[in-house]
Amino acid sequence: MSRNAVKAAVMTAPGRIETREFPYPEVGDDAMVIALEACGICGTDKHTWRGETTQYGGTPAETTTPFPIVPGHEIVGIVAEIGRSARTRLEYTGKPLTIGDRVVMCPDILCGRCWYCRNAFGFPLCEKIRGYGNHFTATEAPHLMGGWAEHIYVRPDAFVYKVPDSLGPEIAVMTELMSVTYNLDKAKEFYSMDGEGFGSGATVAIQGVGPMGMLHVLKARLMGAGDIIALDRSDYRLQFARKFGADHTINVNGLTSREIADAVRDLTEGRGADVAVECTGFAEAIPTGLDMIRRGGTYIVAGVFAEVGDVSINPHHLAAKQARVIGMCNHPPTAYPASLKLLDKAQALYPLRDFVTHVFAVSDSKAAMDQVMDVDSCMKVVIAPQGGRIGTRS
Amino acid sequence: MSRNAVKAAVMTAPGRIETREFPYPEVGDDAMVIALEACGICGTDKHTWRGETTQYGGTPAETTTPFPIVPGHEIVGIVAEIGRSARTRLEYTGKPLTIGDRVVMCPDILCGRCWYCRNAFGFPLCEKIRGYGNHFTATEAPHLMGGWAEHIYVRPDAFVYKVPDSLGPEIAVMTELMSVTYNLDKAKEFYSMDGEGFGSGATVAIQGVGPMGMLHVLKARLMGAGDIIALDRSDYRLQFARKFGADHTINVNGLTSREIADAVRDLTEGRGADVAVECTGFAEAIPTGLDMIRRGGTYIVAGVFAEVGDVSINPHHLAAKQARVIGMCNHPPTAYPASLKLLDKAQALYPLRDFVTHVFAVSDSKAAMDQVMDVDSCMKVVIAPQGGRIGTRS
Amino acid sequence: MSRNAVKAAVMTAPGRIETREFPYPEVGDDAMVIALEACGICGTDKHTWRGETTQYGGTPAETTTPFPIVPGHEIVGIVAEIGRSARTRLEYTGKPLTIGDRVVMCPDILCGRCWYCRNAFGFPLCEKIRGYGNHFTATEAPHLMGGWAEHIYVRPDAFVYKVPDSLGPEIAVMTELMSVTYNLDKAKEFYSMDGEGFGSGATVAIQGVGPMGMLHVLKARLMGAGDIIALDRSDYRLQFARKFGADHTINVNGLTSREIADAVRDLTEGRGADVAVECTGFAEAIPTGLDMIRRGGTYIVAGVFAEVGDVSINPHHLAAKQARVIGMCNHPPTAYPASLKLLDKAQALYPLRDFVTHVFAVSDSKAAMDQVMDVDSCMKVVIAPQGGRIGTRS
Amino acid sequence: MSRNAVKAAVMTAPGRIETREFPYPEVGDDAMVIALEACGICGTDKHTWRGETTQYGGTPAETTTPFPIVPGHEIVGIVAEIGRSARTRLEYTGKPLTIGDRVVMCPDILCGRCWYCRNAFGFPLCEKIRGYGNHFTATEAPHLMGGWAEHIYVRPDAFVYKVPDSLGPEIAVMTELMSVTYNLDKAKEFYSMDGEGFGSGATVAIQGVGPMGMLHVLKARLMGAGDIIALDRSDYRLQFARKFGADHTINVNGLTSREIADAVRDLTEGRGADVAVECTGFAEAIPTGLDMIRRGGTYIVAGVFAEVGDVSINPHHLAAKQARVIGMCNHPPTAYPASLKLLDKAQALYPLRDFVTHVFAVSDSKAAMDQVMDVDSCMKVVIAPQGGRIGTRS
Repeated sequence: MSRNAVKAAVMTAPGRIETREFPYPEVGDDAMVIALEACGICGTDKHTWRGETTQYGGTPAETTTPFPIVPGHEIVGIVAEIGRSARTRLEYTGKPLTIGDRVVMCPDILCGRCWYCRNAFGFPLCEKIRGYGNHFTATEAPHLMGGWAEHIYVRPDAFVYKVPDSLGPEIAVMTELMSVTYNLDKAKEFYSMDGEGFGSGATVAIQGVGPMGMLHVLKARLMGAGDIIALDRSDYRLQFARKFGADHTINVNGLTSREIADAVRDLTEGRGADVAVECTGFAEAIPTGLDMIRRGGTYIVAGVFAEVGDVSINPHHLAAKQARVIGMCNHPPTAYPASLKLLDKAQALYPLRDFVTHVFAVSDSKAAMDQVMDVDSCMKVVIAPQGGRIGTRS
Repeated sequence: MSRNAVKAAVMTAPGRIETREFPYPEVGDDAMVIALEACGICGTDKHTWRGETTQYGGTPAETTTPFPIVPGHEIVGIVAEIGRSARTRLEYTGKPLTIGDRVVMCPDILCGRCWYCRNAFGFPLCEKIRGYGNHFTATEAPHLMGGWAEHIYVRPDAFVYKVPDSLGPEIAVMTELMSVTYNLDKAKEFYSMDGEGFGSGATVAIQGVGPMGMLHVLKARLMGAGDIIALDRSDYRLQFARKFGADHTINVNGLTSREIADAVRDLTEGRGADVAVECTGFAEAIPTGLDMIRRGGTYIVAGVFAEVGDVSINPHHLAAKQARVIGMCNHPPTAYPASLKLLDKAQALYPLRDFVTHVFAVSDSKAAMDQVMDVDSCMKVVIAPQGGRIGTRS
Repeated sequence: MSRNAVKAAVMTAPGRIETREFPYPEVGDDAMVIALEACGICGTDKHTWRGETTQYGGTPAETTTPFPIVPGHEIVGIVAEIGRSARTRLEYTGKPLTIGDRVVMCPDILCGRCWYCRNAFGFPLCEKIRGYGNHFTATEAPHLMGGWAEHIYVRPDAFVYKVPDSLGPEIAVMTELMSVTYNLDKAKEFYSMDGEGFGSGATVAIQGVGPMGMLHVLKARLMGAGDIIALDRSDYRLQFARKFGADHTINVNGLTSREIADAVRDLTEGRGADVAVECTGFAEAIPTGLDMIRRGGTYIVAGVFAEVGDVSINPHHLAAKQARVIGMCNHPPTAYPASLKLLDKAQALYPLRDFVTHVFAVSDSKAAMDQVMDVDSCMKVVIAPQGGRIGTRS
Repeated sequence: MSRNAVKAAVMTAPGRIETREFPYPEVGDDAMVIALEACGICGTDKHTWRGETTQYGGTPAETTTPFPIVPGHEIVGIVAEIGRSARTRLEYTGKPLTIGDRVVMCPDILCGRCWYCRNAFGFPLCEKIRGYGNHFTATEAPHLMGGWAEHIYVRPDAFVYKVPDSLGPEIAVMTELMSVTYNLDKAKEFYSMDGEGFGSGATVAIQGVGPMGMLHVLKARLMGAGDIIALDRSDYRLQFARKFGADHTINVNGLTSREIADAVRDLTEGRGADVAVECTGFAEAIPTGLDMIRRGGTYIVAGVFAEVGDVSINPHHLAAKQARVIGMCNHPPTAYPASLKLLDKAQALYPLRDFVTHVFAVSDSKAAMDQVMDVDSCMKVVIAPQGGRIGTRS
């Protein structure tokens, strides 16, 4: 196996990124190294790039980005080196691992012992949660703690998931983000005949159809939505949304908050959406989203993964509307196997291969960031070590 | 409009059916008449035909079939005559109705005043529930209380649903049965991270893929199942199931209960299905179904709508398995709009037009029953007044 | 029975109330008249008194108080006159009614036909909901549409509930408000092992322990709370809360929002409450409440039944905290029988008879309002026709 | 600390028990020894005594009792010796431990790595679950793996819970069994307005009010039940149940299954119980329990923790009744802190100190078993090392 230095993109401050080389890590009995095939640029990375560097704000897990970091947490790659005990332990569902296997990786590291790890199950509410690509400084070994790199080091307390042979890396790279759409599974769990939650045939509105919103469109369709309404400022993205399952699109450019909500009401016999999901990352989307749900409707706040400031809402409307608000950040580890299953089934019906629109080499990460900030010309932008081509095999 | 006598199929006893004529009914201000386009033969009708004539057994709603009856409760047709106030009242979701509109109909009549109607909402647990095609004797006016006829009388306390223009009658006739798959919505509601209920990516096993099981296959797929396993005695039906979304099929012919459950375990890494649904109508399917779910799995008892006798189960296994059992008969009225939405979206992706395999004229209802009892050569069999052709328009 | 004019308190504008006489109403076959024993003054009445006259804001049901009104919707009294068909129809659970029976009354009138009545069950989300004591102008017959009066007219589409013999009127008058604590039943329904909702042993914080908050304290205790934390500005109320089940009290006078939330964290090993319920009626309580719940905690917005303006919140915290927010106004009709049961069981264990601290005659309603606005010296204030003494029997 | 031999009761076969001495165990850095104050005799122990030695039957966790065993899993005692790292790790909720602390102990040992441990959270569905007092043979070191002994060895992968100072050992010994009543929390989670699950004010029937049923009576009361109906063959137990919260009692002696269910219907306006819980341990209780719930009611199968054979049920009734059946064995670890909270709050209101009716010394375990099999003269029977007196302090 390669013992050369490993190239990685390093974000040194908001708006600044460069290429560095790190030593190939030592791999003990219980750890692993993945040779990356691709790693996505996520909305979270855009928050960090903009200087919105506080995550898990208002909780014991609150962090500020420990620059410099190797970003990247939407990870797919090939097992390059693996310790003996790691072969039977690192795969979440217990599958054996060997060199050459394709895996995706959950970026979260949990302590397993805090009150939250012991009392609130399934969802990573850990007080000490730390994530690959976000919370590990690149100045400390093993350095390779993010996916915009040639290799990534997998700690003994991390988890990966074997990818079915039927899924190529250009689709498997969607797994982490697809797992974020667990937001909609939670809305399903809240369903009851009182009219709350996400029932079959429900109208689902998605605010913001960048990659995260786009997969919410897809997931809503795969879970039995009725009409799906996509809202965005970009016609490019709205057209994209139609291919992934949206029935209606609303370009919100130049519209007031009230006009946006009215546009949703116009499509829903005057009532509003049964479920709306905030996937914009902007605080001001929240009051609009609360306005666009019907009485008894459910609103999921999902996009504001980083601190973006306060916003004004009307609490009487919250009560009178009988609103249910579900704040969500992140995803549970069980969402990965489900996401792999759903992507595998969906690839025959939807153009999932079109999701990644741009591939950049590790050394072109600045160009990749420039591209990803131009929302009118891209969907998912990924970093891929092999000269800007997804995959490791020539 | 026609004032001629109306032709209807009349089941006079188990195994006996004939054609009779009834006077066209008087339609008051608040009632309606539908000219039928098609009406399905349901598993319930097969129960009755076999002499399994007790429904809602063990409940205050228990009935015995009041022969003679006009069977048929999977109803689609065209509004032929409608009273003034009925125009704004009979459509469940409040849509205005006029002559010529295509509608489907919920067969259930509820009292609205018993303890169940007042305390258990959404699902028709009414103590006095009576259904078109099952519980009204044909000897009393208005006689036309079932769908195997040229016309059906719609009481003021019944409900119909307007069919979207995009749905033809050959698909709309599936609406009632598609609403029965609300069983899976209930399993979704039971979902939690304890591992119970129907989560995204879950393995769903369907016991019996006649028309009811077939739509459970479809619905499971439309709601985000992972692998779907169809079980039946008929290869014809199992092949059909693959077209509607099944990934795996098991022909249970000649297999013991244990072998059937083992076959499901073989497809699920040894664990068993996350969710299984009994759609067979046979008591002996129950212990097999309980055996095929994994620990913490969910079992839906849905097919035994009529009294079919006792069966032996192991209560310790129920407890040790941490099983959740959901007994379901019927569907809620809200399932109709959802079903219309889902059928409308699904017709582009699945061969829904193939669902109805046989169409018989009202006067050929005996032949229709003979066909429907031969499970190896048909899926949905319908009665259609227009010379055995679905639709009313020439 | 009495055919004299009926005395009633009439609120003519915010801050203005007077006594008027109305003709005793005509009672048809399907209606009823109750001779009031007592009727509470609710927080809603205080909103109206302060000029916060918009209810159900931001929904199709939005109203502005149609002054003049006879206020009062926490109703207990004796059947004084009843039409023949009403005897078997007006009691919600089907119990027969006769003159002399003690009943409580649900103030809500629903249309039964709008989309919400047809699709969202159990909870009164009706687009046209109108409530006794709030939405009927006193200028139109039958005038007596509120409980601060000697008699109240019960429409055919209203519902009453027979009071068990074991419950006196001084406790039965709590039934409507006890039904509002259905908020906590909803939080129970949201319970899952993810850590959301109201589980047994959970710490529940109640913001504001006026009568509504006080019954939330009691209900939380009756439903299996662990520690209950009461927050208020009034030591009088906080001491009262201890008698109804509170374990800890926090006087929020002079504290900042952050200090209040910190005080809750100090009582919860630093985490915050599992569940918090806003029972203050003030917008500024909302961000404090969101701050005081733990990660994954549940927040119920219940007190702002009237329009009270906007407030600023942090949406990233909502997401990062994984908060669940349940907006609630009103109660379902099924909460009444449950409330009667619980009050009946609880009266042996808690000093429920102390809940009503002040009783005023109908003609003293101005004095009653003055009393109720002084939160440091009263809990529930009621209007009672019999010279300021609860009950009708001498 | 004592290094003497440790006395323990050893069940060598069904119906056979004797006293043996074992060496005091070695305690490493991460383990602990508890000096027992008391340990209950559970229904599970009675199953084993009767030769019903298969547990977790029909699941991957299936076991047969590995005689000889030291029975006992309802454990309360004092920390006698503790390794350094165990001081901060063995308490489930993270509280530090030191010698002299009173603790209760969860008997379950989970693998943490099987599919169930990784995918079904909160509830111990582990494929390899093994329990103190049931699944560890006494022939292997450290031998002291059950609570009918002077000391018990606490493995590094076990958990204990610190007992509040306000709870004496005679009440704390109820914690494990109180945690089993999590069955009712699950029924609460299933609550919805469809009428399923355990809502406030619901009628709850408990089949069998031995210790396990008795605590279900108490828990139902603490969680907001309306009427509680206790059923048993023993008048002694039924009278006991009234002190713990039962409103009605039915002595089932000599009654047919139908007569028992009718007796429940007589107490519930003819409908049946909203929720029924099987706490008998006998298979034949199941069809009776299913008969006694109302339509849409919930049935919890909880008592048959061991293999007790098959029983006949009517699957059509299951469907027609719209029954929800919850199979439960065991409890989640999170139930312990909740149980300690609830017992602490409840001791002021209910005679919890009367729950333990008999205390036997370790060397009198045969007499203890004889007593516990005589259901007409005891409630909880415990083994206590200090000469048959609960506690360790003189």
